Amino acid sequence: MIPANIIAKKRDGGKLSTDEIQFMVQGYAKGEVPDYQMSAFAMAIFLKKMSRSEVFDLTQAMVDSGQRLNRGSAPRIDKHSTGGLGDKTSLIIAPLLALEGFHVPMISGRGLGITGGTLDKLEAIPGFRTDLNNQEIESQLEKVGCVITGATDTIAPADRKLYALRDVTATVPSLALIVSSIMSKKIAENLDSLVLDVKLGSGSFQPDMAKAELLLRELVYVGVQFGIKTTGLISDMDQPLGQMIGNAVEVMESIDVLKGGGPKSVRELSLELTARSIQQLDPTESRDSIRNRLCEHLSSGSAFAKFEQMVAAQGGKIPESFRIETKRVVEADREGVLTEIDGSKIGYAIIEMNGGRRVAGQSINHGVGIKWLAPLGSVLCAGDPIAELYCDSESAAEIASKMIVSACQFNTRSTKEFLPLWL
Amino acid sequence: MIPANIIAKKRDGGKLSTDEIQFMVQGYAKGEVPDYQMSAFAMAIFLKKMSRSEVFDLTQAMVDSGQRLNRGSAPRIDKHSTGGLGDKTSLIIAPLLALEGFHVPMISGRGLGITGGTLDKLEAIPGFRTDLNNQEIESQLEKVGCVITGATDTIAPADRKLYALRDVTATVPSLALIVSSIMSKKIAENLDSLVLDVKLGSGSFQPDMAKAELLLRELVYVGVQFGIKTTGLISDMDQPLGQMIGNAVEVMESIDVLKGGGPKSVRELSLELTARSIQQLDPTESRDSIRNRLCEHLSSGSAFAKFEQMVAAQGGKIPESFRIETKRVVEADREGVLTEIDGSKIGYAIIEMNGGRRVAGQSINHGVGIKWLAPLGSVLCAGDPIAELYCDSESAAEIASKMIVSACQFNTRSTKEFLPLWL
Repeated sequence: MIPANIIAKKRDGGKLSTDEIQFMVQGYAKGEVPDYQMSAFAMAIFLKKMSRSEVFDLTQAMVDSGQRLNRGSAPRIDKHSTGGLGDKTSLIIAPLLALEGFHVPMISGRGLGITGGTLDKLEAIPGFRTDLNNQEIESQLEKVGCVITGATDTIAPADRKLYALRDVTATVPSLALIVSSIMSKKIAENLDSLVLDVKLGSGSFQPDMAKAELLLRELVYVGVQFGIKTTGLISDMDQPLGQMIGNAVEVMESIDVLKGGGPKSVRELSLELTARSIQQLDPTESRDSIRNRLCEHLSSGSAFAKFEQMVAAQGGKIPESFRIETKRVVEADREGVLTEIDGSKIGYAIIEMNGGRRVAGQSINHGVGIKWLAPLGSVLCAGDPIAELYCDSESAAEIASKMIVSACQFNTRSTKEFLPLWL
Repeated sequence: MIPANIIAKKRDGGKLSTDEIQFMVQGYAKGEVPDYQMSAFAMAIFLKKMSRSEVFDLTQAMVDSGQRLNRGSAPRIDKHSTGGLGDKTSLIIAPLLALEGFHVPMISGRGLGITGGTLDKLEAIPGFRTDLNNQEIESQLEKVGCVITGATDTIAPADRKLYALRDVTATVPSLALIVSSIMSKKIAENLDSLVLDVKLGSGSFQPDMAKAELLLRELVYVGVQFGIKTTGLISDMDQPLGQMIGNAVEVMESIDVLKGGGPKSVRELSLELTARSIQQLDPTESRDSIRNRLCEHLSSGSAFAKFEQMVAAQGGKIPESFRIETKRVVEADREGVLTEIDGSKIGYAIIEMNGGRRVAGQSINHGVGIKWLAPLGSVLCAGDPIAELYCDSESAAEIASKMIVSACQFNTRSTKEFLPLWL
């Protein structure tokens, strides 16, 4: 087989065989297919799309480029979110599932662009390690029940390599490439159950409902094809989830929820995702009854204790108080009803303050963040606080403040219907 | 400007600005835009196409990546062909134009795939150099009037780099990329007149009439936009041009034409292309009158003398007789009228015998070739000769013979209309 001929076949809209897809992906993982052929291939896939069976084959090839985690002594569950502002549910869901007796091997990522990354958040905890290898993951699952760590060198290495390439060749937003990238890591985790949280709105990668539904459907399809019970929901990202956006501040808010408090939106979405992931393994129990048990874990303090145990197992220690940068208040510049928030501008404000990344590999300040004070529908007067910034630079704070003010649209009255927390 | 954003714009069907195209091409020439971004960009151009003004800008950017030849003391003319079997007219046209007082800076290429390359043919002449630099080209134009050599390092270097990349990323047959690649080298030659010979048929890259017409039209459009008088024709490649296909054998046939003999098809096409290229600089003279003068150059021996002078200037010496490999005859396996020849099989037969290249850089045997004996419409009996092979390997000759027999379609009578030599 010749790479240029396989690229040409996809370029002309042809359907690739399992062998052709394996040849390209394994060749790429081994360095036999160079970056410049893979990027032309990715662009051809972007523009000519892939059938469901091709996406399945592509996912399988990514998985086959590395090793799957070995099976353990308990059923495995994971949650995957497509990423959004203040999306911190992983930190709550992992301990809850572990308390329910499941193993949770969460392979997570770093923030890039407007959305944060779970690994960055956890690294706000002094000493926390996110570079466990497969053996460490498997052993921690047996001891603690949950792990949140980065992709190891042996988990779908072709995906890791391709993801970096897609980022610089304008081939990120391809359905086939997104689905195979997400699912290859989940398949490699050797799961029994997976729940997907597809974010919809200005603070996520997907502001279009039809496309969000399509993405969810295709993700579920691949999961089911691989024999994993897979379900999911579409959740609102027209405003930040909870109040806190950043790294240390999001861990703080997660701890509030883990201790039985915190914002209702974060708590509700975490409970719902957890309950759905459990229920599909035992449909005889009602979701309400599962949720009641999960609420107990939060209010009893056992969820927080499990979180502390996971943090300790990964070398971390939750501090008495997190180091947070100087607080500054952002005020509304007019009166009105807050009817729209441009989440991407909030994301860029975080990046401006060095709490997020423009390019992969950039170092960030974990103490930077935003506390969002004005939910959609708030009636504000000029001078009312919209948000608090935590920032170590006067000039960056000024730019970020302007971005936040310009992100808010006010109206004389609210005629807009806001999305529910999830669909 | 960020390369990924420019790639994304083309990917989404957008029209690129002059600055965006310059940024990508100059960045690529300087190594600041890596191969993997350029190949994704090329695939996006392939699939989303380019407007005429974008193709103009792309051509300009390729030219700007290097230097144009300095102007000389006489008007400059060149001919470009898209390549076909036995296409040897360059060797005849360059001396003819020089005799007419023009300068002919022919930047030519090597053979790749089924079509031969002018440089390979000329390298069958012992000592002939095809690696002249810009200064040597300019000086030979003043002394001899014509040069046939390879692209120098300073002639559209971005095109040279991109061409090698396109070859391995399935982005060769893109109209925008083909037109800008051909024309950038011609613009860099600083021409006054250009005549294009677009080949049509099974022995060329273009078997489709509508696409050949489109290619010719777009090539002419760019030439005219750059202020060069540009014309062209579409010529038949449903059978080889002349009898000889190969390298040394094609030089031999060209010398026959330069001395006033040779096959009518080679002579006619050479005269027509030369006459058209001259006439557009002086439309007051009729094409017939120009052709009469050119015929004189052939029959008087002055065309051959000019060819010898060019060869000598480039370090070569035409031998008493060329070294040609052992002759073997290929016979028809049935009787009938020869109604179709699959030119690509003839091209692959040449490659099989090591007279052409599968991949760039491969060394070839200049003494290998085919003499084609049966033009379309020939009435043959089983055992009649179709072609002579010149080959140094018994086994390769056997494979090539089978390819040639299988390239021929016979019918009980001819109902097919054959193409004229040109349109």
